[in-house]
Amino acid sequence: DFHVDWDASAAEKGGYDWFMLKEIDEQPHALADTLRGRLTDSGEIMLDEVRLTDQDLRDVDKIFIVACGTSFNTGLVAKYAIEHWTRIPCEVELASEFRYRDPVLDRSTLVIVISQSGETMDTIMALRHAKGQKARVLAICNTNGSTIPRESDAVLYTRGGPEVAVASTKAFLTQLAACYLVGLHLAQVRGVKYADEVGAVLAELQATPDKVARLLSEMTPVRQLARDLSAAPTVLFIGRHVGYPVALEGALKLKELAYIHAEGFAAGELKHGPIALIDEGTPVICVVPSPRGRSILRDKIVSNIQEVRARGARTIVIAEEGDLDVAQFADDLIYVPATPTLLAPLMTAVPMQVLAAEIAATRGHDVDQPRNLAKSVTVE
Amino acid sequence: DFHVDWDASAAEKGGYDWFMLKEIDEQPHALADTLRGRLTDSGEIMLDEVRLTDQDLRDVDKIFIVACGTSFNTGLVAKYAIEHWTRIPCEVELASEFRYRDPVLDRSTLVIVISQSGETMDTIMALRHAKGQKARVLAICNTNGSTIPRESDAVLYTRGGPEVAVASTKAFLTQLAACYLVGLHLAQVRGVKYADEVGAVLAELQATPDKVARLLSEMTPVRQLARDLSAAPTVLFIGRHVGYPVALEGALKLKELAYIHAEGFAAGELKHGPIALIDEGTPVICVVPSPRGRSILRDKIVSNIQEVRARGARTIVIAEEGDLDVAQFADDLIYVPATPTLLAPLMTAVPMQVLAAEIAATRGHDVDQPRNLAKSVTVE
Repeated sequence: DFHVDWDASAAEKGGYDWFMLKEIDEQPHALADTLRGRLTDSGEIMLDEVRLTDQDLRDVDKIFIVACGTSFNTGLVAKYAIEHWTRIPCEVELASEFRYRDPVLDRSTLVIVISQSGETMDTIMALRHAKGQKARVLAICNTNGSTIPRESDAVLYTRGGPEVAVASTKAFLTQLAACYLVGLHLAQVRGVKYADEVGAVLAELQATPDKVARLLSEMTPVRQLARDLSAAPTVLFIGRHVGYPVALEGALKLKELAYIHAEGFAAGELKHGPIALIDEGTPVICVVPSPRGRSILRDKIVSNIQEVRARGARTIVIAEEGDLDVAQFADDLIYVPATPTLLAPLMTAVPMQVLAAEIAATRGHDVDQPRNLAKSVTVE
Repeated sequence: DFHVDWDASAAEKGGYDWFMLKEIDEQPHALADTLRGRLTDSGEIMLDEVRLTDQDLRDVDKIFIVACGTSFNTGLVAKYAIEHWTRIPCEVELASEFRYRDPVLDRSTLVIVISQSGETMDTIMALRHAKGQKARVLAICNTNGSTIPRESDAVLYTRGGPEVAVASTKAFLTQLAACYLVGLHLAQVRGVKYADEVGAVLAELQATPDKVARLLSEMTPVRQLARDLSAAPTVLFIGRHVGYPVALEGALKLKELAYIHAEGFAAGELKHGPIALIDEGTPVICVVPSPRGRSILRDKIVSNIQEVRARGARTIVIAEEGDLDVAQFADDLIYVPATPTLLAPLMTAVPMQVLAAEIAATRGHDVDQPRNLAKSVTVE
């Protein structure tokens, strides 16, 4: 049982060198808490606060997900799940761009805002812009009573507990879980998923905390790898489908913490320019989808891995346990527990967090408080 | 008069050290050619080939722009113009991701594909996927008779002439012009812009070749700056609104040609992580919108410039002629001719091209044929 009461001790390091390391390890608990008690007796997914009718949700014909930083990367993953499950077109926007770009919104638009603190100023301003255009707003937030949930029409709280380290880790995983729940709720209300179908996905979700716990118990080689990579001037991350936002998130962590110029790419874009960056020994972290998913997707990324390796890259491959074929293309190989295609980011993001924290520590940086950054960005 | 016949001499360097430098200088001609003769006697914008009825175009309720590399950055700019002029929601997707992500498409979806060569394999596969889903496809392409225009329902050709250098320059500017024309055409067919309104934008567009020519005549300080920056390990580009895709394109050029890890950001995202990358002297190239546009947008980027400067960045500011206020925040200042907000990328992208070519040459690289890259990517 992963239950944790988020009392005062949650704000202490409890034996860890850094809050971030503690928060990485809290992820199984945080995930389990976020998923707990979400089903009604009749098998329906519940949000926490809903000031909308089911009919309002059935009327939605367009979704925007609006967020910043790590929460934006969450949104990019959520788009795949929400479109796949609901067939409602879903667009993901940076909050700082959304309100200035004159988006097409109306009463049948649902705007999902994601913010750990609930006080991110760009996201608050985007929310107000959306409400001004009569759109409905659903918030995914970790902080009860903060501005964003207060001003939204519906709320699903992540139950991650306090996050002290500036670089988000458990916020990312719990936001992902929350987005999956929102997607399932929308699918159910609109009648495009039956209760048993929703139940099957929820069961898969509820299996993820144990898997993340097991994965975290196997991080010794990843920490060793981190010490090996700590002097790299450039690190690239590649992925496709839901692995692409995970690549962006992995690169963001490394930028924030290690001050290494890391960048995430959709693997198919490499040959349209970025592959020129690859020098002898440049580390490329590659997110490989499950071989049980769409084989065409997996074949494509395997060929991308071969391309970068042929140009001298050091390939660090994150793949599903049992995927033995990829080993031949990997200079370093990190296995994660098997998970359905859409839920895989709950696994593949974890070694990237450990890698970034360990590289930062090796380089002698303050892991919890990187230079130039604040925990919540309450100015525009 | 900028008319040029693209005869055999277009495939020779004509006194330039590199094709890329020649192609940068050909941009006024290429732009003028792309814009020439697009109006019917009754004041309507014409495409080149149209196998769709006006009613088909009036039925469009969703647009996807699908492309790779530089053409993708074109699409990101086009989204702003097309949504602003037509109020049709418009989403921009990487071709390599589009077909695998299960997009929501139907008969009233218009998919705009952009490819210089017309043979980009990822884009061809995306086009075929879209047609399989019954969507309408409009191509923007530089190569008559290539696969992409042949398989599309409508075509607007850029008239850029042959582009030999791997890094696109005149393809970017002519594709932008083509996208503006497509946006105006859609607006006109749907009755949301009158002929005189379309004519006014077209007149502004037709003024851009002369402005680009003048801008190109003032590049000596930019070349000097390039030599100054040529040893930088990391260069950041920031912009907002249409300046954001220009930042992405500037960074792509520098990656491709100079093998410098350059990255473009929406300026508002900096404080959500990437600002940690900024070290003493890190060059940050900042695209400032016209002070005659939305003042809130300009104020925000000016404050982003101050933020990065306070953390030690060297600020290289690209701003509109007559914008005297920004000078105080600029370590280096590049003025471009005044242009309406949506058309500004036709100006602001140009100094970035010159910068990238000159940095690459200073570093001793092959400017026309960067390592690891091919001119058209005819494999997936």
